[in-house]
Amino acid sequence: MTLQSISWQDGKLQILDQLKLPQETEYIAVKNVNDGWQVINKMQVRGAPAIAIVGCLSLAAELAEAKSTYNEKAQLHKDVSSKLEYLVSARPTAVNMKKAAEELSNVSKSLCEKSISLQDMVKSIISWCEKMLEDDVNTNKKIGKFGAEAIISSNEGNSSVQVITHCNTGSLATAGYGTALGVIRALHDMGHLNKAFCTETRPYNQGARLTAYELVYEKIPSVLICDSMGAALMNSQKIHAVVVGADRVTRNGDTANKIGTYQLAVCAKHHNIPFYVCAPTTSIDLSLAHGKDIPIEERPHKEMTDVAGTRIAAPGISCWNPAFDVTPAELITGIVTELGVLKPSELFKKLQDN
Amino acid sequence: MTLQSISWQDGKLQILDQLKLPQETEYIAVKNVNDGWQVINKMQVRGAPAIAIVGCLSLAAELAEAKSTYNEKAQLHKDVSSKLEYLVSARPTAVNMKKAAEELSNVSKSLCEKSISLQDMVKSIISWCEKMLEDDVNTNKKIGKFGAEAIISSNEGNSSVQVITHCNTGSLATAGYGTALGVIRALHDMGHLNKAFCTETRPYNQGARLTAYELVYEKIPSVLICDSMGAALMNSQKIHAVVVGADRVTRNGDTANKIGTYQLAVCAKHHNIPFYVCAPTTSIDLSLAHGKDIPIEERPHKEMTDVAGTRIAAPGISCWNPAFDVTPAELITGIVTELGVLKPSELFKKLQDN
Repeated sequence: MTLQSISWQDGKLQILDQLKLPQETEYIAVKNVNDGWQVINKMQVRGAPAIAIVGCLSLAAELAEAKSTYNEKAQLHKDVSSKLEYLVSARPTAVNMKKAAEELSNVSKSLCEKSISLQDMVKSIISWCEKMLEDDVNTNKKIGKFGAEAIISSNEGNSSVQVITHCNTGSLATAGYGTALGVIRALHDMGHLNKAFCTETRPYNQGARLTAYELVYEKIPSVLICDSMGAALMNSQKIHAVVVGADRVTRNGDTANKIGTYQLAVCAKHHNIPFYVCAPTTSIDLSLAHGKDIPIEERPHKEMTDVAGTRIAAPGISCWNPAFDVTPAELITGIVTELGVLKPSELFKKLQDN
Repeated sequence: MTLQSISWQDGKLQILDQLKLPQETEYIAVKNVNDGWQVINKMQVRGAPAIAIVGCLSLAAELAEAKSTYNEKAQLHKDVSSKLEYLVSARPTAVNMKKAAEELSNVSKSLCEKSISLQDMVKSIISWCEKMLEDDVNTNKKIGKFGAEAIISSNEGNSSVQVITHCNTGSLATAGYGTALGVIRALHDMGHLNKAFCTETRPYNQGARLTAYELVYEKIPSVLICDSMGAALMNSQKIHAVVVGADRVTRNGDTANKIGTYQLAVCAKHHNIPFYVCAPTTSIDLSLAHGKDIPIEERPHKEMTDVAGTRIAAPGISCWNPAFDVTPAELITGIVTELGVLKPSELFKKLQDN
């Protein structure tokens, strides 16, 4: 059994509180859009795909509960659209929620125009959200397979590889299986993984708390390193690839991901190590030309200065706490999607054709 | 008044407990060599120059206390030599303690052979240790001046620079003033510093706890960043130099320093930013040809998995926790010593001539 970060049953949504992991395994009920906004903003759920799924399912939960309170379809559509817009505002960098909001708003609009009942419109919107949960796992399994095959085939003669990953991109960041962690899972399942190294991922410690938790849970041979150790590791052991997730990939292949991704990419380049971004096409934003157009969220300083409720940093010090950075396309070997491993330069054509 | 990490008065040694900073300012009495070994090994005092000074002064304190217990000079010399050797074993990477031990052991040997009394031999050994404390501050002031001038002169037309530093190399890591932090102090004193960025420096958080403390204390404009943010910072703001300390520099200029230094050097190279190692000549080990000959200390996993007594990392995860890494000479713009700013390639000749 794999970890379940998002539980949806009979119109009830619960999420595993990722602020409390790994010390406590506690589920939180997300009853409506306000709850959804809160858990996303507080990072009780995080990871670009999971944010979108929880956001949409929080709307589905509200609709399942309150389906009788609407009088007409136009009122429902208006409400759905504005609530989706509100959900997008919880965290700005990941594009998945934004894309899902646009798509679901369009679905709602066309349902509104169809000759169906208000009840059926509610049902269809809920079904659409439920399908996201189902689709994401299948997408991730494809990403895992494509990524693992690419790493193995570029290391012919070496049946056992070592990879570095950053942040958390596993079952906890998605509906299940994971993106970059899905690639690691697939390498392990195929018997081709010697060891996975995961970074702590300061300041929120997603690596130390969440990725390490998943790796131990799945009995995948793994080692935790500090964020400062990537280059030293690349210099002291054979590393066959770096695999990371993405919060938003722009048309040219530039990728926003957890702060520290760019630093790892620079180090991978210096050591001639392939660098793969692993993300569903729902993380790709064709509307933006370059990474510099991506809004980068800055988080509260307290997340840096305090750890587990204890102040670590000297009082009075200023902080810079961007949650993400942008890795330029030229440092990326391939973008591993459910459609296959794409070069940044072929991203636009491939996705337009699709 | 600057921070005083090492207090020596009337044969009594006290050190500021750096494990408790910045929450508590508590001095620990170091009465003998065993105490000295303990505070160095536990990292209650750290920083290559401070380790050597505290190590030698712990011996001086023991001698000041126990001067009547020796019967003859040969016995004293034998004891001094073996105690110095023991002190070297507390932490293996920094060379300063090793070099001081060799030098003081030679001093002790020649005192032993001279026609002086046992009491005078004790006095001379204590004086030698006291002089280390005095010399280190003067050395650091020269390093600060040379480093600041080099950074300013390579940025002509820009009277206000921004630098990144790693770990703690200030008053707390030395007898006072600091090495890389001495360069920052000098830049600030000269009115040429816009801002200093200091990294958290996981896992021991010397940056967040100690460097940030010193910078706030000295009212130097400064910002704390996570270790993962160096490259992103170099890409988003003008950074004029990276300044770091050293635990050991080999004959060819390769430099062992706090883990994460190499990663910063790789990123500085990628962004075309000068990278300076700031260290007294006592950190230079002409006996080693290459950085790969430097012993790299690995620290307990608990220092990574736990923060301020709270377990952060998932239970069961393995760790890799090297305390240092080696930056190859080709990534180093200059080594800032009390003799001036030396290119790695001219280190050997310059030091041999000196």
